[in-house]
Amino acid sequence: MEIRKADSYGFCFGVKRAIKIAEELKDATTIGPLIHNNEEINRLKRDFNVKTVEGFDELGEVKKAIIRTHGIEKQNLEKLKKSDIEIVDATCPYVTNPQKIVEKMSKDGYQIVVFGDEKHPEVKGVRSYSVTPPIVIANVEELENHTIKNKVAIVAQTTKKISEYQKVVDYLTSITREVRVFNTICNATFENQDAVRKLSQEADVMIIIGGKNSSNTKELYKISKENCNDSYHIENESELEKKWFENKNLCGISAGASTPDWIIEKVISKIKEICV
Amino acid sequence: MEIRKADSYGFCFGVKRAIKIAEELKDATTIGPLIHNNEEINRLKRDFNVKTVEGFDELGEVKKAIIRTHGIEKQNLEKLKKSDIEIVDATCPYVTNPQKIVEKMSKDGYQIVVFGDEKHPEVKGVRSYSVTPPIVIANVEELENHTIKNKVAIVAQTTKKISEYQKVVDYLTSITREVRVFNTICNATFENQDAVRKLSQEADVMIIIGGKNSSNTKELYKISKENCNDSYHIENESELEKKWFENKNLCGISAGASTPDWIIEKVISKIKEICV
Repeated sequence: MEIRKADSYGFCFGVKRAIKIAEELKDATTIGPLIHNNEEINRLKRDFNVKTVEGFDELGEVKKAIIRTHGIEKQNLEKLKKSDIEIVDATCPYVTNPQKIVEKMSKDGYQIVVFGDEKHPEVKGVRSYSVTPPIVIANVEELENHTIKNKVAIVAQTTKKISEYQKVVDYLTSITREVRVFNTICNATFENQDAVRKLSQEADVMIIIGGKNSSNTKELYKISKENCNDSYHIENESELEKKWFENKNLCGISAGASTPDWIIEKVISKIKEICV
Repeated sequence: MEIRKADSYGFCFGVKRAIKIAEELKDATTIGPLIHNNEEINRLKRDFNVKTVEGFDELGEVKKAIIRTHGIEKQNLEKLKKSDIEIVDATCPYVTNPQKIVEKMSKDGYQIVVFGDEKHPEVKGVRSYSVTPPIVIANVEELENHTIKNKVAIVAQTTKKISEYQKVVDYLTSITREVRVFNTICNATFENQDAVRKLSQEADVMIIIGGKNSSNTKELYKISKENCNDSYHIENESELEKKWFENKNLCGISAGASTPDWIIEKVISKIKEICV
């Protein structure tokens, strides 16, 4: 029986990249958690001595610092660069992109609008790149309280819904002469869904790995089940049953966005063991 | 009794400007009608010898040519410039604007999308300024048949509805990385409505001039009537009645978008005559 992973599954590209950086660097410190997944943060601490401090001022005698996936404020990055600390940037490229856009557009005279949660580290980082005061809004209603210039550039927090973003863009289109709309929304969730849809059409058994309470994993399972009746949603390898794989040719694997690779690998090893 | 015209009424800015140009120049020829109003075209022909030819090739021995409010194709303008014909450009500045945007954006590598009627002279002119093949669409559904680049700049025909434009922008936002939205819609109709709303709140009699079948004139009358009970919708001065103006202090005047100034002036003269 062939075992095939979906083209896109589990952690998104930016998170995988950050974990790889942290593992390779070892003994480094991140300001704020590297990613939003405690189990993985604990593993990195245990196996690779990757520590987390809450704030910039707690770095103390730290030698190596990793910039978290969400990025940090420009002024803090500059302070870090001036220090003796070795810096490795694990900011997700999908977050670096709006940072660069905001910097360039604000220098070109555009009023910057950031559509996102002003308390989220990603948004704090992105807004800090504007050379003029940016407007940060969580919804279109908040925008109505602001005076808007005739030239506006807008970016969205990577996890925002496109339909909500369109509402904000619609409003801006109606009141300004030029709106530069940058679609900075990351499609990772949708990419996982597209990939499981494709794989489940070919496979005769599908294993979807992720928390039973994880809504994005349940969504993956639902899509898989539509195409492949022998689809199973499990949290870890202990739930696997030998009979699921009898007389099967292709076993497809997918995982929710909060499922680390090492849990997936354990599942795959166990399937191989069962099927011998 | 004071007679006061609304801040905005009748012909839009671009049409008024073109008529003034044609009157001052005299004996000139326009390629295609200068504006979309036959009565006014006839008056210009009769009083100022302004002739209209259908096509570029019919100019013959013409000495002076006026570029119509809707503009013309770039290549035809260039041909005209190379000829001995004196050219006066009466293109509405609100139309010159999208022409310039399309030229600049296409040179900067943006895929040009023009939202409008491809048969309309304005759209024919605007699209001709793109140095790369532009996409012209009348609605969002038509856009779905096109392959779109990652960088798009969009302009709208000046008379398009903003709500329809937003639908097109929403679609582009969802499928491309950058959309530069230029709001090139002209608000003349809404400006007339805003102005009649304001004036009718002050006036104690309102005269709204325009065709009885003109929907934008009826809309102006409706707004006026909401604020000033003594509002009257007339087509010309022959309908005025003396009693309308008895014991009145302020007479407000507005007119539909297809009402020439000379009709409005005749009405005002007649009101003055009546009230003596």
